[in-house]
Amino acid sequence: MDKNSSALPLVLLAEQFARLPGIGMKSAERLAYHVMQMDESQVREFADALMNAKHTVHTCRICQNLTENEVCPICSDVRRDSSTICVVESPKDITAFERTREYKGVYHVLHGLISPIDNITPDKLRIKELLSRLDGSVSEVIMATNPTVEGEATAMYISKLIKPLGVKVTRLAFGLPVGGILEFADEITLFKALENRNEI
Amino acid sequence: MDKNSSALPLVLLAEQFARLPGIGMKSAERLAYHVMQMDESQVREFADALMNAKHTVHTCRICQNLTENEVCPICSDVRRDSSTICVVESPKDITAFERTREYKGVYHVLHGLISPIDNITPDKLRIKELLSRLDGSVSEVIMATNPTVEGEATAMYISKLIKPLGVKVTRLAFGLPVGGILEFADEITLFKALENRNEI
Repeated sequence: MDKNSSALPLVLLAEQFARLPGIGMKSAERLAYHVMQMDESQVREFADALMNAKHTVHTCRICQNLTENEVCPICSDVRRDSSTICVVESPKDITAFERTREYKGVYHVLHGLISPIDNITPDKLRIKELLSRLDGSVSEVIMATNPTVEGEATAMYISKLIKPLGVKVTRLAFGLPVGGILEFADEITLFKALENRNEI
Repeated sequence: MDKNSSALPLVLLAEQFARLPGIGMKSAERLAYHVMQMDESQVREFADALMNAKHTVHTCRICQNLTENEVCPICSDVRRDSSTICVVESPKDITAFERTREYKGVYHVLHGLISPIDNITPDKLRIKELLSRLDGSVSEVIMATNPTVEGEATAMYISKLIKPLGVKVTRLAFGLPVGGILEFADEITLFKALENRNEI
């Protein structure tokens, strides 16, 4: 945005939007103009939502998921099976699992994946918080990181730490996506689908 | 975002992002999670920029462009030729013209285009503010609305109001975009380029 022909607070707002992931300067300008057309009460609601989320949301003491409470609703739900922990990269992944309505265990959020190229070493993830939960009451840890290089490396790294403790470590099954078309599947997925074939 | 597995303030923040144009619910969730990872000071800066833009920016008393002052920097610049007014749809268009560094006149922002289908009637645009500027000191009004149905209709509507006042009304030239490739030009552009051909 041209600082000479635009009002400065508008330029500053556009720059704030442009700092968000996936929003370029052109989109940021469009968003800033949109804000100018919103009612003052709507803008205040937006600003309050920003501050409120940042102030009141923190990580659950147990599973590290984002929550307003000290312990998140899933960890504090006595109907959940706390002997099975599903380890995920981010809180978004929990939402995906909860949508299946099938998983009854609890979670653990790593808040990232090991990625030396991005300078994310194991000590930057919530791994020691996971290990501290393995006090004998946990019988299985499901590694549910993404099937990417980083996801695989993180699953392998953590499983090597956990196995000596006598806890079963499992990995999500890989195969054809349900509803997917075989001819469009990549080689590795197809290989995994073949390798993990089941008798019918 | 699943309200059962996500912290409520985070869901509310995602909903705020999703209200912005061009941001779907998935992107909004990603942005809300990103905010959680920002420093508190950065989030406060963002919230302040929102409120600040809305509070301090309003329309210039003369040209209706967005500004922090009563009169915008362009209208208050004595080096600008105030006898030529370039009429545009939105403040963004001013930025585009200013980038050319060629236009020395002033502007008038309509804040929209006539569009009966969207319930935007002429009285919703800043047309009477434009007419009130034509006090004899203005010799030319350049209609610089987009070459769309709404842009053309608005240009025609306003020119019919202005011409009886004895003020010259002009329209931006249409033709091939500079650097464009002839074979990819649409018929209407090509027709306009042919119609407005110049002797060389």
